Amino acid sequence: WVYFRDNFIMDGEVDAEELQRCLTQAGIHGTYTPFSLETCKIMIAMLDKDYTGKMGFNEFKELWSALNAWKQNFLMFDQDRSGTVEPHELGQAIASMGKTLQVKTLKTVVLRVSLNSPVDFSDSSLYCVKQQTLNVFPDTFNRRDNMHQGFVNFLYDDFIQCTMSI
Amino acid sequence: WVYFRDNFIMDGEVDAEELQRCLTQAGIHGTYTPFSLETCKIMIAMLDKDYTGKMGFNEFKELWSALNAWKQNFLMFDQDRSGTVEPHELGQAIASMGKTLQVKTLKTVVLRVSLNSPVDFSDSSLYCVKQQTLNVFPDTFNRRDNMHQGFVNFLYDDFIQCTMSI
Repeated sequence: WVYFRDNFIMDGEVDAEELQRCLTQAGIHGTYTPFSLETCKIMIAMLDKDYTGKMGFNEFKELWSALNAWKQNFLMFDQDRSGTVEPHELGQAIASMGKTLQVKTLKTVVLRVSLNSPVDFSDSSLYCVKQQTLNVFPDTFNRRDNMHQGFVNFLYDDFIQCTMSI
Repeated sequence: WVYFRDNFIMDGEVDAEELQRCLTQAGIHGTYTPFSLETCKIMIAMLDKDYTGKMGFNEFKELWSALNAWKQNFLMFDQDRSGTVEPHELGQAIASMGKTLQVKTLKTVVLRVSLNSPVDFSDSSLYCVKQQTLNVFPDTFNRRDNMHQGFVNFLYDDFIQCTMSI
């Protein structure tokens, strides 16, 4: 933590580019591709309760523990340690985190995160961080689905705010 | 068109990386930053009716005309030709295309597309292509809002499919 804290000392917060450097130096991606700037932007949005576009040290700790959980989960499905999983294995990994996706939805996810190639940890993290951001966003799915009926209502502005944050 | 068609001759379609090269060579971004791979992925998703992750020549022509319309619109609000617009000018540009966003929504958009810096044409195109994809997506906002009441209902899977495509 001392190591990471140094990155936050200057102004107490990191932007997406600083976060990308920080995570790359920390080597959380292991032998996989480092996180893209896109993924880092959304990581910040996931925890950015005050809309500053930056991440403080406490949020970073929260992100770090999420990343480690996602990595453990990814490794469970990358059984041959090739560094990538097949689309159906990504589907299993997502299902093991609580939500089973339909085939066409999984297809959209794989296209978007990995351009239809085998999915590596950085790719699967892009899905995880988007999915998590949708869940924690003040006006999105889980909070809106108060009755647990599996559907939600959006006003246009809320819909754009939610979808544009990921 | 002969120039562009050469890029499509090999297999009749381009993926996101080929599209990025194609648009950069065509110079549609002018003096602005070239489109990111992220933006190119979503450009493909916007018109990818058969979920191949690739774009054919007819879709490319459709994209090209959308890009030119977005660029004309952007230039109207970049009156000092600085190459960037301020957040409130982006808000005006978006409103001129038909939907006025609330202040907090605009803030989310600016953070996401330009990390809170002044917004250039590539940044504003990232918003346009996301917004357009949400509109054309088979199960999303405009088509769901049949009664024009300004709100929509989503099942979880549809919600994920729609949000993960952008």
